[in-house]
Amino acid sequence: MSELRQDRTTGARVIVAPERGHRPRQPAAPAPSPAPGFDPACPFCPGNEGELPGIIAEAPSAAAPGWRVRVVPNKHPALRPLPPEEAAPADATLPGHGFHEVVIESPRHDAALADLSDGEIATVLSVYHDRFVALAGRPRIRAVVLFRNHGAAAGASLAHPHAQLLALPTMPPGVQSQIDWAERRFRERGNCPVCDELARERDDARRIVEERRHFAALVPFAATCPFETWLVPKRHQASFAEIDADELAELGPFLRDALRRLRRVLGEVPYNFFVDPLGPAETGQPHLHWRLRILPGLVRPGGFELATGLAINPSRPEEDAEALRGADGGS
Amino acid sequence: MSELRQDRTTGARVIVAPERGHRPRQPAAPAPSPAPGFDPACPFCPGNEGELPGIIAEAPSAAAPGWRVRVVPNKHPALRPLPPEEAAPADATLPGHGFHEVVIESPRHDAALADLSDGEIATVLSVYHDRFVALAGRPRIRAVVLFRNHGAAAGASLAHPHAQLLALPTMPPGVQSQIDWAERRFRERGNCPVCDELARERDDARRIVEERRHFAALVPFAATCPFETWLVPKRHQASFAEIDADELAELGPFLRDALRRLRRVLGEVPYNFFVDPLGPAETGQPHLHWRLRILPGLVRPGGFELATGLAINPSRPEEDAEALRGADGGS
Repeated sequence: MSELRQDRTTGARVIVAPERGHRPRQPAAPAPSPAPGFDPACPFCPGNEGELPGIIAEAPSAAAPGWRVRVVPNKHPALRPLPPEEAAPADATLPGHGFHEVVIESPRHDAALADLSDGEIATVLSVYHDRFVALAGRPRIRAVVLFRNHGAAAGASLAHPHAQLLALPTMPPGVQSQIDWAERRFRERGNCPVCDELARERDDARRIVEERRHFAALVPFAATCPFETWLVPKRHQASFAEIDADELAELGPFLRDALRRLRRVLGEVPYNFFVDPLGPAETGQPHLHWRLRILPGLVRPGGFELATGLAINPSRPEEDAEALRGADGGS
Repeated sequence: MSELRQDRTTGARVIVAPERGHRPRQPAAPAPSPAPGFDPACPFCPGNEGELPGIIAEAPSAAAPGWRVRVVPNKHPALRPLPPEEAAPADATLPGHGFHEVVIESPRHDAALADLSDGEIATVLSVYHDRFVALAGRPRIRAVVLFRNHGAAAGASLAHPHAQLLALPTMPPGVQSQIDWAERRFRERGNCPVCDELARERDDARRIVEERRHFAALVPFAATCPFETWLVPKRHQASFAEIDADELAELGPFLRDALRRLRRVLGEVPYNFFVDPLGPAETGQPHLHWRLRILPGLVRPGGFELATGLAINPSRPEEDAEALRGADGGS
């Protein structure tokens, strides 16, 4: 029987309909032949810096020879910085002030996040965090979105491994309504809804994939798609900006291993991941608690999802978690 | 320069970013070779009725020889009817009570909605309307969603032309918040927001594609994707259930011709369309006014859209409308 489940941390609803019988398990397509380590036409490959609009940061710092991770402006930005006098709203239009950056996660064109070494993935995460904090501090920024698209079907237009940050001058209405929902829930119950949910999930255990010292990986109760996975910090913290050094050091390999588990179970599939979008105003709030959400792209949303904003998940979260627990996250 | 535009009828926001330079105009792929008129493996083709879970209705009625349009239960329903004693909510779970129907729009496997005759498309629309009204009247139904997925990339799992209706026991939160937004706007201004928007668009004319006696076709001010097109009834009416016979007779060919315009400009592309999802409680409301929304699937949403619910439209609505106005909607 299908169920309409409600996410107890955001209020979002989802139709969990495993009877639909489309339950994807096997790779939808054979793994693509590996890309070469260098593509002369790729603007993100070393040596092709002439194609970049600039370089914002490198890690290790530019003084050291070579780079592991590089931050560049998006060449086709969705938003760009505007001076205050050009950013005044008019009727139903707000000028597109903001920042749009790309994190190039490796000099190697064919690198996969799931295959990086501990040191490499640690550098990636520390650059994610640096840029998240830097953009949240820019003038007239209300929300920072850190996201990654893997595979053309997940919206990636370049194959070279990269993530993006988009800093917005306004809180998206859909995010604001989830923040409001969490605040009401906090007022009613006196606890952070994510802390509550994590306690309930650890108690129940069916949807937990793996726990380490600072983080838990789980398939959420109201997963919006098959094999949706959350990485949740155990310590209460509203925003990714608030992560501490020990937690950040654990998160890199934990994320890599979560992606490996997905690959072991599903094969090479497109996916998106993102960190809950928040801005400076939300830092330190008792009702908010960030997550990193990974969404494999196994089912295509259609007109129903566009019309309602309601996801139909043809997979049972408890079974997805069981399959992921059984898969090795190691190299 | 990009703009954050707000839809003045729903409150939804979109980033209009034509600078991104991905503006799609040409067909993304060559038109697929036409399917045959009959596919022995297709459950919707005449003669394969053994594959159907049942037949709910036919038009012309079953007494006449042959059928033009047939309504069947979805074989893998997202929701199914439950007796009241099984439909009680528990904590964050609501049992999946509802109805999921498929409208087979032609006996011909290779028929395209854009190529139907006036009589054929009129029958399709009248069946859409009959089922919309019938499902809205079922017990414990709060919203009916009429939608169509065209092409595998738009979520269609079968090629035979069909639309779907899904009747839900709860109003989706995203739809409810748009209803609430429209109600607030109505209270502030004393007019239906869609009537207001339509008057403004007719006055402005840049985004109008075509007008007939009862309907206008336009690219909305805050279009969520390239070439999004709305078909809007000129007379105020909250719900598709309230359309009158003259309006319904005009809507069929108007919809077909709108799809033809899209095909002339874009080639064979996947698309979704849907009628604003509403239920019996919304009928007759002064602040609501239904539309049929057509969304060509030219851009793939990625992690940003998943994280924020905010669309990035790389196309300028005014230019899309101009291109569609210049395309012939005739056969």
